[in-house]
Amino acid sequence: MKKKENVDFIDVNNAIVALDAMGGDHAPEEIVKGAAAATLGSNVNIILVGNENKIKDILKDVEYNPNQIDIYHTDQYITNEDTPRRGISRKPRASMLIAAKLCADEKAHGLVSAGNTGAYVLSSAKCISRIDGVKKAAIATVFPTQNAQNRKEPFSLLLDVGANVHCSVEELVQFAIMGKVYFGEIKGIKDPTIALLNIGKEEYKGGDILSRTYKILTTIEDLNFIGNIEGHEVLKGYADIVITEGYVGNIVMKTVEGLADALTHLGRYAFKRRFIWKLGLIALSSGLRQIKQIVDYSEYGGAPILGFKKTIIKAHGRSKAKAITNAIILAAKSHNLHIPEKIKQEIQKHNLLFQK
Amino acid sequence: MKKKENVDFIDVNNAIVALDAMGGDHAPEEIVKGAAAATLGSNVNIILVGNENKIKDILKDVEYNPNQIDIYHTDQYITNEDTPRRGISRKPRASMLIAAKLCADEKAHGLVSAGNTGAYVLSSAKCISRIDGVKKAAIATVFPTQNAQNRKEPFSLLLDVGANVHCSVEELVQFAIMGKVYFGEIKGIKDPTIALLNIGKEEYKGGDILSRTYKILTTIEDLNFIGNIEGHEVLKGYADIVITEGYVGNIVMKTVEGLADALTHLGRYAFKRRFIWKLGLIALSSGLRQIKQIVDYSEYGGAPILGFKKTIIKAHGRSKAKAITNAIILAAKSHNLHIPEKIKQEIQKHNLLFQK
Repeated sequence: MKKKENVDFIDVNNAIVALDAMGGDHAPEEIVKGAAAATLGSNVNIILVGNENKIKDILKDVEYNPNQIDIYHTDQYITNEDTPRRGISRKPRASMLIAAKLCADEKAHGLVSAGNTGAYVLSSAKCISRIDGVKKAAIATVFPTQNAQNRKEPFSLLLDVGANVHCSVEELVQFAIMGKVYFGEIKGIKDPTIALLNIGKEEYKGGDILSRTYKILTTIEDLNFIGNIEGHEVLKGYADIVITEGYVGNIVMKTVEGLADALTHLGRYAFKRRFIWKLGLIALSSGLRQIKQIVDYSEYGGAPILGFKKTIIKAHGRSKAKAITNAIILAAKSHNLHIPEKIKQEIQKHNLLFQK
Repeated sequence: MKKKENVDFIDVNNAIVALDAMGGDHAPEEIVKGAAAATLGSNVNIILVGNENKIKDILKDVEYNPNQIDIYHTDQYITNEDTPRRGISRKPRASMLIAAKLCADEKAHGLVSAGNTGAYVLSSAKCISRIDGVKKAAIATVFPTQNAQNRKEPFSLLLDVGANVHCSVEELVQFAIMGKVYFGEIKGIKDPTIALLNIGKEEYKGGDILSRTYKILTTIEDLNFIGNIEGHEVLKGYADIVITEGYVGNIVMKTVEGLADALTHLGRYAFKRRFIWKLGLIALSSGLRQIKQIVDYSEYGGAPILGFKKTIIKAHGRSKAKAITNAIILAAKSHNLHIPEKIKQEIQKHNLLFQK
């Protein structure tokens, strides 16, 4: 496998990624195209799990490096209509489940799917062990900010956004540790700032679990904990990593996702009300479409599911080829950065601290 | 007191509103100006509670109807720096506390403050009884939507947004009932749609309290409960009333508040990245300012604190004169619509249902 002479070529050290070819709103078409593009832009190896004929049909029409693509055939796949538990038990040969098994059996280093989130978390949990000492896995999502900290890129990380509903103190503290390792490594930020999503600055706010979590986070010396962060501050980017339970994280993430849409429509309402807004709002509608592209997950590719021994990336259901390419590269990079191993070390160090 | 010959004149039946003249970022200046304007546009009577000299100084320079304004002097007031509990116990003659007492003593029909939210809820709780059977008071806030239901105005109601952190099943059910009465009366919507903020459509989602609340809400015949609503759907306006615990409601409300700001800044980031976005984004920055006006609370005036025997309106801390005028009129209207009494009837009806 020789590297392409291309300035944008990404060296991921030939990492192998198992890809659920059948998951996502635009599967398998955009998933396979994303994989094809990844083989042209990097030395990643991909195992496409899904319907072999369909995959080959799509590959026929696109450019890709055949040395870097394998196909693992299966006819079963989980849809968004499947409830996670039933879907997995009724479809033991589902593409996302097989992809997870390939990872567990060391046939792949990382895992990517744009399919049913709940089923993906369950498939991962069924096949891949949690890191020793980690109480709960968490889905972490990247979101755009106003870059209050002047980082190279104006993004922060929010976790958990839905792997769990409610969380214990220890789980929230572990999310902070896992988030720190992941975001620190992937973004190259030394001592990323960490905050707890809450309804006020004061330590006592938000009830018993949050106030105890606050207290513990302040005692962990190598965590750059900056305290509580409120809803209106999250998007300012005061913290690199925002910690919350899955119930709240999911609602906040989806509210932000739905907002560009809402603003466009509000624009139309205002348009009817005040003539003076006319010009601004006409221009606005196209401008908001561009903004939406930034808010849109497809620009960055994937949300890591942290806490497992393998690198697991959830691509957004709406992902098109470009987002899938990004998610594949992200999975390969995470593997090369040994993120699961580093999380293990940090968790063990702090478990010792807890036991003092 | 004679009515002005003005098409915009609002008849509130000479209702009396106690107004905390010293609370809010722009107090007392904008608060007093808002009161002055209210006396010109309606037959509301206002008791301004605060520093008499300062209030008189401001009134000197504005037009108002002196027959509709009384001043109740006090030198104490609670700031945003005061913690609610300490503020109230150390400042027994604080303006918001006196205003609440005037209401409790039947000297006023409604109460308005733009001051410290926590202290305002506590002041109200200290002076004014909760409606019989109501377990917890809730702060309800109006937010702009995409008007999916084609209402006359594209707004929905979210509660609780911070009076409580976590809530029991019965409290959440009562929030639905109180929200229905308030929004139905104020907006003139028959059978307003009610939804539970959650992380999925299914009844079992979101943990024990939410799934039990879901179940009970479906059994109450005269509540138009439409099920769970997810974060990205809230701003679409699928439901007139969105029910959640105070912790989540507060974070969602503040996230939405912070968003127009965040989008403006993101625009600048995109500006640097892609030349093609240039024109759209220049236009965008002014357009977003307009949108922000809609999102901004100052356009609608006030959030009701539901569950007390008197009408209590919380104006946003940032309120300027126009928002205060709106909040005063809102308090007077709520009183005339007998909202506390109607909440009492509905709560008692459903308490009987619960006990079956």
